[in-house]
Amino acid sequence: MQKPKYKIAIDAMGGDFAPLNEIEGAIQAFKHCPKNVNLEILLVGKEDVIKSHLNTLGNPEFSYSIVHADEVVTMKDEPTAVLKNKKNSSLYMGVELVKQGKADAFVSAGNTGAVLSTSTILLGRIQGVSRPTIGSYFPGVNKSVLVLDVGANVECKPRFIYDFAVMGSIYIEKILGISNPKVGLLSIGEEDSKGNELVLQAHKLLKESNLNFVGNIEGRDVLTGDCDVIVCDGFTGNIILKFAESVMTLMKSKFKGFADKSLKNKLMMGMFMPVLKKVFTDLDYQNYGGVPLLGTNGVIIIGHGKSSPLAIRNMILKAVEQIEKEVNKEIEKALK
Amino acid sequence: MQKPKYKIAIDAMGGDFAPLNEIEGAIQAFKHCPKNVNLEILLVGKEDVIKSHLNTLGNPEFSYSIVHADEVVTMKDEPTAVLKNKKNSSLYMGVELVKQGKADAFVSAGNTGAVLSTSTILLGRIQGVSRPTIGSYFPGVNKSVLVLDVGANVECKPRFIYDFAVMGSIYIEKILGISNPKVGLLSIGEEDSKGNELVLQAHKLLKESNLNFVGNIEGRDVLTGDCDVIVCDGFTGNIILKFAESVMTLMKSKFKGFADKSLKNKLMMGMFMPVLKKVFTDLDYQNYGGVPLLGTNGVIIIGHGKSSPLAIRNMILKAVEQIEKEVNKEIEKALK
Repeated sequence: MQKPKYKIAIDAMGGDFAPLNEIEGAIQAFKHCPKNVNLEILLVGKEDVIKSHLNTLGNPEFSYSIVHADEVVTMKDEPTAVLKNKKNSSLYMGVELVKQGKADAFVSAGNTGAVLSTSTILLGRIQGVSRPTIGSYFPGVNKSVLVLDVGANVECKPRFIYDFAVMGSIYIEKILGISNPKVGLLSIGEEDSKGNELVLQAHKLLKESNLNFVGNIEGRDVLTGDCDVIVCDGFTGNIILKFAESVMTLMKSKFKGFADKSLKNKLMMGMFMPVLKKVFTDLDYQNYGGVPLLGTNGVIIIGHGKSSPLAIRNMILKAVEQIEKEVNKEIEKALK
Repeated sequence: MQKPKYKIAIDAMGGDFAPLNEIEGAIQAFKHCPKNVNLEILLVGKEDVIKSHLNTLGNPEFSYSIVHADEVVTMKDEPTAVLKNKKNSSLYMGVELVKQGKADAFVSAGNTGAVLSTSTILLGRIQGVSRPTIGSYFPGVNKSVLVLDVGANVECKPRFIYDFAVMGSIYIEKILGISNPKVGLLSIGEEDSKGNELVLQAHKLLKESNLNFVGNIEGRDVLTGDCDVIVCDGFTGNIILKFAESVMTLMKSKFKGFADKSLKNKLMMGMFMPVLKKVFTDLDYQNYGGVPLLGTNGVIIIGHGKSSPLAIRNMILKAVEQIEKEVNKEIEKALK
């Protein structure tokens, strides 16, 4: 039997360390790809820059091709302006490759808002999906949890929240293999009656659904609870995501403050540094390797600007899985 | 010149460790009260229980009287039901003492929602205040910041947010002595155009005000920014507050996980425990000693259920300061 061949387009110019991390991640993905899959990488970006980096890396052998893109979308570009003004960018062209069926997925650590809006407009929504959504994994005491939406949808209607729950459940079930994932609705109290108007309405929809809805959960339950999926509006989700990312900064500054107090403290911290590093690494979003943009007619994986080669590798492999497990087909079946 | 005499009523039955922590905190407050103030504590609660605890503590000498209250408000009581059904509770009676001018302030580590609703209804709002608010201090890399609202007002109008900013600024200026405190509006991007409808409208009001408004801030800036006051709706504020409180739980579980892996790890963690304890204590909300309910006609300080004697002490001393600095009069002047 012939192995299925998947073409994954990578935004070689996206991310803070592009194209180096993107190229190294691609090479690693190629090495770690499941044996039953034939992986081809499309490096989308400035041909000369990519070639020069490949050269620096000793022109490693892996199955790839370069798709030249003249322009680069920066973090400063207005997301919606890319659709008009940067059609020759690696970001736009990567999504376009998916639209034209020339790539099976697109992976980018670039401007998240631009990936979101470009993908939503070019690829369109899966039938039945009210709004595409971006989630993020949060590390927890018992398990990590996928929180969505984390910023794609600032103003939400109850139906959007419901759709996030359905898409998140399907994704977690298919990709993490957790059957009947537990879904919580982020609110300010566990009782059904607690929350703002949006939450109260969304609660009703979720309660009537056939999802494994465990009810309202509170802010503390994001890290210490046992949900697999947590849904909220994109305003709230974005704020807790960014808040969470800054917790490590605070911890580090406190430990540094301790070390700076005396030589004895400094020596003690030095000894303990490997432990801190290990624990902080465990809590680092990057190791989760990007998150899917769910709900568009295509497989799109978005990564943090600081994505390491490891994160890029994981993003590519997650894209492969999402194609293999036909996540989008399941979403359409559930929401149509 | 005669020293001013302040009577501070304490909810002796509020809090998870009542009345012990409440009584010990009161004694400590008496000892640490500024010399220019004559402090009298009104211990509100079950007389026999309070007397028995005072007896256990060797009947220490300090200026107090007991105001007997037959009932106790628990964490399970519906906040608004207290007004109807628990008029003989320490919580209700404490607020009533303030209303009748028999106490200058009321301090409680009991049911926050019940303190909020009872105070708002019994004492009424300060003229010009659209909604009373509860804030909370968040420890930060550079400084701690007062975030408000953290749950008193789940649905907000732009004007509420503006009022929170005014009240928070006055409180921080008067109590912490920070002149012209920096005010940030919690949103999902720094640009004026970023946020939900509520934030966009509130932004306009704040921009036109004579507050030291620094604009929108993001989730990460709560811990790493340089604001003195951050305003948001009570839904968002409550979620990040509870999320923040759970971060320590996550950190502890990660360190425990490391220690449990081997005897060597355990010994290493044992050595490092004093440092962790020190850092975690620095980050602990309890040391901030309660927060004011701002906007009612009275001085009300609310503490966490787990408040230690130290926290109770700080709450009482904060109440004294708030009376001395005439915070409520300033609020009326600014908002009338």
